[in-house]
Amino acid sequence: MPKANLFYAQSGGVTSVINASACGVIETARQNKDQIGKVYAGMNGIIGALREELIDTSKETTKQIAALKHTPAGAFGSCRYKLKSLDDNREEYQRLMEVFKAHNIRYFLYNGGGDSQDTAHKVSQLSLQEGFPITCIGIPKTVDNDLPVTDNCPGFGSVAKYVAVSIREAGLDVASMCESSTKVFVMEVMGRHAGWIAGAAGLAAEEEGDSPHIIIFPEIAFNEAKFLRKVKSCVKKFGYCAIVVSEGARYRNGQFLADAGGKDAFGHTQLGGVAPFLADLVKQKLGYKYHWAVADYLQRAARHIASGTDVEQAYAVGKAAVEFALAGKNAVMPTIVRKGTKRYSWGIGEVPLADVANVEKAMPRKFITTDGFGITDEARQYFAPLIAGEDYPPYRNGLPQYAKLKKQLVSKKLPAWNKPG
Amino acid sequence: MPKANLFYAQSGGVTSVINASACGVIETARQNKDQIGKVYAGMNGIIGALREELIDTSKETTKQIAALKHTPAGAFGSCRYKLKSLDDNREEYQRLMEVFKAHNIRYFLYNGGGDSQDTAHKVSQLSLQEGFPITCIGIPKTVDNDLPVTDNCPGFGSVAKYVAVSIREAGLDVASMCESSTKVFVMEVMGRHAGWIAGAAGLAAEEEGDSPHIIIFPEIAFNEAKFLRKVKSCVKKFGYCAIVVSEGARYRNGQFLADAGGKDAFGHTQLGGVAPFLADLVKQKLGYKYHWAVADYLQRAARHIASGTDVEQAYAVGKAAVEFALAGKNAVMPTIVRKGTKRYSWGIGEVPLADVANVEKAMPRKFITTDGFGITDEARQYFAPLIAGEDYPPYRNGLPQYAKLKKQLVSKKLPAWNKPG
Repeated sequence: MPKANLFYAQSGGVTSVINASACGVIETARQNKDQIGKVYAGMNGIIGALREELIDTSKETTKQIAALKHTPAGAFGSCRYKLKSLDDNREEYQRLMEVFKAHNIRYFLYNGGGDSQDTAHKVSQLSLQEGFPITCIGIPKTVDNDLPVTDNCPGFGSVAKYVAVSIREAGLDVASMCESSTKVFVMEVMGRHAGWIAGAAGLAAEEEGDSPHIIIFPEIAFNEAKFLRKVKSCVKKFGYCAIVVSEGARYRNGQFLADAGGKDAFGHTQLGGVAPFLADLVKQKLGYKYHWAVADYLQRAARHIASGTDVEQAYAVGKAAVEFALAGKNAVMPTIVRKGTKRYSWGIGEVPLADVANVEKAMPRKFITTDGFGITDEARQYFAPLIAGEDYPPYRNGLPQYAKLKKQLVSKKLPAWNKPG
Repeated sequence: MPKANLFYAQSGGVTSVINASACGVIETARQNKDQIGKVYAGMNGIIGALREELIDTSKETTKQIAALKHTPAGAFGSCRYKLKSLDDNREEYQRLMEVFKAHNIRYFLYNGGGDSQDTAHKVSQLSLQEGFPITCIGIPKTVDNDLPVTDNCPGFGSVAKYVAVSIREAGLDVASMCESSTKVFVMEVMGRHAGWIAGAAGLAAEEEGDSPHIIIFPEIAFNEAKFLRKVKSCVKKFGYCAIVVSEGARYRNGQFLADAGGKDAFGHTQLGGVAPFLADLVKQKLGYKYHWAVADYLQRAARHIASGTDVEQAYAVGKAAVEFALAGKNAVMPTIVRKGTKRYSWGIGEVPLADVANVEKAMPRKFITTDGFGITDEARQYFAPLIAGEDYPPYRNGLPQYAKLKKQLVSKKLPAWNKPG
């Protein structure tokens, strides 16, 4: 009987280090060829399994697989496709089983956030019911840092580093010119539901007066009057005001500031973007000249300024996932465990998928200062080690050189799948 | 008689390497203490001279001055204050003279773009008329790359590198997700009058299908129908479309797409930003899901990803300015001279300020492909060496460590100046 194969898929929004996890998976599987056959990667994530579009990673060179460790985004493609519950769409799960059976896949490694861990958990349960047991291991990934149990999520540390570096640099720019030009700068960062990313930008402010002066968190209801007072006092005190705002900033009633329904100062519906909205508010109410930036995908794709810690952890959870599978573990996810309080160190732990699926970790209120505009020392202690270390990609002609894969598909054995997905 | 002092000022929009020029000036002056007394830097640029706010750089440590080479923005402060013509505001020039006389300043080094070179030129002329000759040397600086004679402008190469790296990374992100999510990504870059920066982003596209697929230049009148056809064909061919747009993108009639008068799809005035405008246009006309980013100050402050070539050239023009002054040259600006065609090398040349003042260098039409959406091989050959090399700042706790100056002011000797400026 041929050795069982392994199926790996990337899920949800990509990060600058999710490919480092893929690298950990593939390199570790290659080191265990006696137990694992081939590693197939889903073309565009789980959709690739449903469509039987399986990338044969054995066709990729050692060099290109190694290059995944320094390549941002999802090298095999990802998707936001969420499988429904077993009751609502058993057919999809059964299709997965058929594809896995057809290709002798006995290991399913799913690299994603809470939804993906839920899916991996369901596949694990169903596989037992169907009498074709599949070892399901989750691999944590999300810039949102909202998975429970694990100390932090691979992907987050690098976004955190990007936003902290960016607001430090842009803050210096504004400080240079504020005497006669721009006085207020607003940088919008990701985080629809929680202020983890916005909070990490606060690391840039190490001394009184450093940027950012104001952070707007989704956790703190936006109070226009209080915000404007704070902006004014910063401009008076420091000559300028650098603001980081989470895309999830919202009013007391829950409405996002950036919502399509938001109005600009002229009462017109605006195109979105909380940064221009806030900047305009400042201009209208306080008259300051402003500039604003929306980093959007730049922040989560910024492998050129990835956190060394994050890269190592992303690789480690991929490696651990394969080791867990080989050790006979099932329906678990490796976690990052923080060790030591004075000097940061970390290790790998594990958690049952059942405990991770669909649980969101909120940022503690104690991470935010009493006035709601900054981060506490406790937050700093949490965030700081996650952005530590640099891990530069190789450059050629001034540009980072990222992996280029063949992405050769395995021959199909089943009828086409034309359902959603 | 005490040795003559040197006055240095930063002017206009700052860059990630203008402080490298300051470093070149100060270090070179310190090496020539037998000929140059103190180096005073204008607090917030030329305004500092008018207000007699002179920073005594001799109070800064060797280490902090060296750190300027890797510190973005304007460490002494900059301003957009333009001196009027001699006829319109002779008083201002005379105030400059008084301050220079009062502090025994015989060297004036002005670090800026075309306007600044014009000012330096006028000060030079006036000083001769007034019988208090001042050696005036311009130091080129502008992310806009629009100074004549010099092959390129310090500051440009680093922005160019930032935008090329960013669109490469964000493009990979979009490619990962396009099967089921975002299909069009728009990144807005600086360049109100010319497409130098937008064009440099084109370096990221080395092979068919690479990002960016479309560049919108100020030089090419925006044609909505043609643009939408191109977006559609890219999405069909590559699965997604990554777009770089210059903030200076305009219609045939000269109106900026991003103008406050621009209308969104609902006919409402929008807050500005050509990226959201274009993204919304794509959504309305083609229905594609989009994301957009506006890098704004992030791009010109991004010292963390500065071009090694740019840093060296910025330092070299600062150094050359002092050497020119010591060699008895006057009313000139050091230039970057491109040497060699196969293998890039460069040297320092010089040009009279009279030939630089108020002359803008446009990007050649032959740099843009016939269809108006990309760059030619000739453009690549010009741009490529300017982004070559990495020059990383030192990091501590995951964050770049930038110079922190004392900025101690020299005691005032003159009555206060309460005029504009």
